[in-house]
Amino acid sequence: MKPNLPNWQERYHARHINTLRIRIEDRPGSLAAVLEAVGDAGGALGNIDIVGADSTHKIRDVQVFAVDQERLDDIIEAVRALPNAELLKVTDDVLEIHRGGAIETRSRVVLDSLAKLRMIYTPGVASVCKLIESDPEQAWEYTHKGHRIAIVTNGTAILGLGDIGPLAGLPVMEGKAAILAHFVGVSADPVLIDSHDSAEIIDIVTRIASQYGAIQLEDIAAPACFEIEEALDATLPVPVFHDDQHGTATVVLAGLLSAMKRTGRTFADLNVAMLGAGAAGIAIARLLLDLGVGDLVMCDSRGALHAGRDDLNPWKRIVAERGNRENITGDFSRAIQGRNLFIGVAKPNTVTKAQIASMADGAIVFALANPVSEIAVEDAIEAGAAIAVDGRSMNNALAYPGLFRGALDARARRITTEMKLAAARTLAECATETLMPDMLDMTVHRRVTKAVREAWEKHGEGAATRTPELARAD
Amino acid sequence: MKPNLPNWQERYHARHINTLRIRIEDRPGSLAAVLEAVGDAGGALGNIDIVGADSTHKIRDVQVFAVDQERLDDIIEAVRALPNAELLKVTDDVLEIHRGGAIETRSRVVLDSLAKLRMIYTPGVASVCKLIESDPEQAWEYTHKGHRIAIVTNGTAILGLGDIGPLAGLPVMEGKAAILAHFVGVSADPVLIDSHDSAEIIDIVTRIASQYGAIQLEDIAAPACFEIEEALDATLPVPVFHDDQHGTATVVLAGLLSAMKRTGRTFADLNVAMLGAGAAGIAIARLLLDLGVGDLVMCDSRGALHAGRDDLNPWKRIVAERGNRENITGDFSRAIQGRNLFIGVAKPNTVTKAQIASMADGAIVFALANPVSEIAVEDAIEAGAAIAVDGRSMNNALAYPGLFRGALDARARRITTEMKLAAARTLAECATETLMPDMLDMTVHRRVTKAVREAWEKHGEGAATRTPELARAD
Repeated sequence: MKPNLPNWQERYHARHINTLRIRIEDRPGSLAAVLEAVGDAGGALGNIDIVGADSTHKIRDVQVFAVDQERLDDIIEAVRALPNAELLKVTDDVLEIHRGGAIETRSRVVLDSLAKLRMIYTPGVASVCKLIESDPEQAWEYTHKGHRIAIVTNGTAILGLGDIGPLAGLPVMEGKAAILAHFVGVSADPVLIDSHDSAEIIDIVTRIASQYGAIQLEDIAAPACFEIEEALDATLPVPVFHDDQHGTATVVLAGLLSAMKRTGRTFADLNVAMLGAGAAGIAIARLLLDLGVGDLVMCDSRGALHAGRDDLNPWKRIVAERGNRENITGDFSRAIQGRNLFIGVAKPNTVTKAQIASMADGAIVFALANPVSEIAVEDAIEAGAAIAVDGRSMNNALAYPGLFRGALDARARRITTEMKLAAARTLAECATETLMPDMLDMTVHRRVTKAVREAWEKHGEGAATRTPELARAD
Repeated sequence: MKPNLPNWQERYHARHINTLRIRIEDRPGSLAAVLEAVGDAGGALGNIDIVGADSTHKIRDVQVFAVDQERLDDIIEAVRALPNAELLKVTDDVLEIHRGGAIETRSRVVLDSLAKLRMIYTPGVASVCKLIESDPEQAWEYTHKGHRIAIVTNGTAILGLGDIGPLAGLPVMEGKAAILAHFVGVSADPVLIDSHDSAEIIDIVTRIASQYGAIQLEDIAAPACFEIEEALDATLPVPVFHDDQHGTATVVLAGLLSAMKRTGRTFADLNVAMLGAGAAGIAIARLLLDLGVGDLVMCDSRGALHAGRDDLNPWKRIVAERGNRENITGDFSRAIQGRNLFIGVAKPNTVTKAQIASMADGAIVFALANPVSEIAVEDAIEAGAAIAVDGRSMNNALAYPGLFRGALDARARRITTEMKLAAARTLAECATETLMPDMLDMTVHRRVTKAVREAWEKHGEGAATRTPELARAD
């Protein structure tokens, strides 16, 4: 055994997922010895399937989670060293599931007759074209526009990997598209734009937007993401939604509503410290300020954002001016003192137990940095937090499918604060035992869809009215 | 009955396809009376289904083909006037088949476990991204790139409808994508570019091309289509294929190979007159000149293209300089005299029987204008043509599915003349009784795919070598 083995959470959420095909002697204790060897070498176990057998041995596929390649190598070495087992093959499950891509285009019509071909294509299709030429709104009915969105990226902020370029980001876009297709029947086209120039990206999206019922911006670095979103939102007649901002803000709000219910707090009671001023941080802060939190101070790497700083981009400035009522000018240690909610969207291991201990009683801690949180959940609880969660509980995939399906079904012009709030409330309602509901549960996505659609139908794109009942969680 | 009723071919290939739900008295002759009324009013009949019945009546769905709305109105009126039938409903079948669009995106993975979500999306997907970052060629394996093409249009030449804009052209792009998905499993993303500026279109396609294994240009007007194709072909590492040019040229070549076999001619024997100098015409002419036809003279609305004209765009000039060996400077009537092959890709009713009669003995006539040909097939035969076909026999959908699937499977850099020739030969081989094979036959598309792939594997992107055997049809 090596020092610093990953804990079980880290193991289970590991990025390296492989299947080891092992021929194991068929006697009591042999399988247990294999599994023990995997665990001792730092792996976690997934599915275990029998794939073959003879009179003396069984062949099993043992799925193994490892945090990095080094751990995986250790696990393989440990299995190879076992006397009663023979390692036949190692398969990278992640690569295999992505082989050939996560999505595909299908015909919605079975083309089994010449008459159907003549309707779906020439000569029949001409009458559909003429109808849309005379009334472009008919594209919502007679093309796939009402079910199709673009997932636009320039690859500058792919996951936590940074600027790896749009093609290297494609597996993420395909993964999101697979989730949208599977859970809510939305067809999402990845649109990979090879450019670092916001003006150019805005122009390209504008030129190619006509067939999409909504535009999802994805993994575009801040502050370019804000510029691009604001420019497109101002001109395009369909929702433009940067998921890293608003999807994240919506799931965080859902978790927060659950946590507020448990701790009996209202928005006005919340006194928030945030760490991290990128796309997600700015969006969360603006949403919470819209919803009337008591106060909110945000910190970047230079400390608290305050109106006196001259190094703030326009979006940080908005947060500095709308929040930080005490005009705190110190570092994060100063900013977090006495607060009852911490939200981190920054970097791993950047918050100490002492900082959490300096918070108010019954504090809520959302430490959301990926892949490792600002502070381990266990440490935050030890330091006195009443509730502590990390990013693994907060999956955007709980929010964006229903947000897009609901917006498309309503033919909404924008995805408004009311729609995000409706989605977050529904997610909080669906979560009974835990802070967040089960994202595999289709009914969750259907309920979010309905709530989002109704929010648009009720409020439209008018500015959200902050009535007193909005200041309560439920 | 009205004068100038469409003939049966026009009726059957009509653009207006509707289903009339009719309650018909259940006695001998009643259905026949309905069908006779439809025919007398100028309609053709499609499927006839029983959808309900009671003791005295049957309810039938009668599918009716009409060349225009006026004919359809006449047919409806005629059915309404019948004593033993009641018209319950008229459904536009073309609109219904396009409702919600012809294509959709599907997940290739059933997302029924958290482990799968963690592989298809975060955190597992990160390792796929890193792999592609380090080696972009891996995108062919671990994304959908090897099966995905773009269908790019700016909507300037949609079918015969002209510049109706990209959104109004979307049903055509979706129809093509449905055919690609159904017959060869290629995923085609419509890419609608709202621009008339070739340089801008070139730039946009270049910026968004990285995820596509090939680019199909579609329904872009000449001469912009030539500029755009040449620029993209020079810079992109994947095939750029303008279907209106090369798909059309390939199916025309297939039909021509069949016709050459029947008439015992070689390419060198062919003495060609063409009418129409748009995208399809230029591509057909260049392909035939590549293949070594005896001579080829092309006419536009001002008469024969010849080197002395100063009004030719660069692509017309190429055809003028490579063909027209007799340096004919007259009009089309002069150009077609004595030729043994006419190919029209111009406008309806622009060729006379006298012009066909002036051709050499045993002439082949391909009158391909849509939706009505330059001269009716029957008239061409009457005027002495040995073989006459119109555009309804020459469906690009016979060629482009196999061309793209074969190019993708070979990871071809270009779609070469050899590949088009291989596709055309295969189509001609598949056609036994008729000039062209059955496009619903999956084996045809599989055989074209294989031939195209092998042509790339054998010849690569080197210039096609015109060996003597290429100068024969078979």
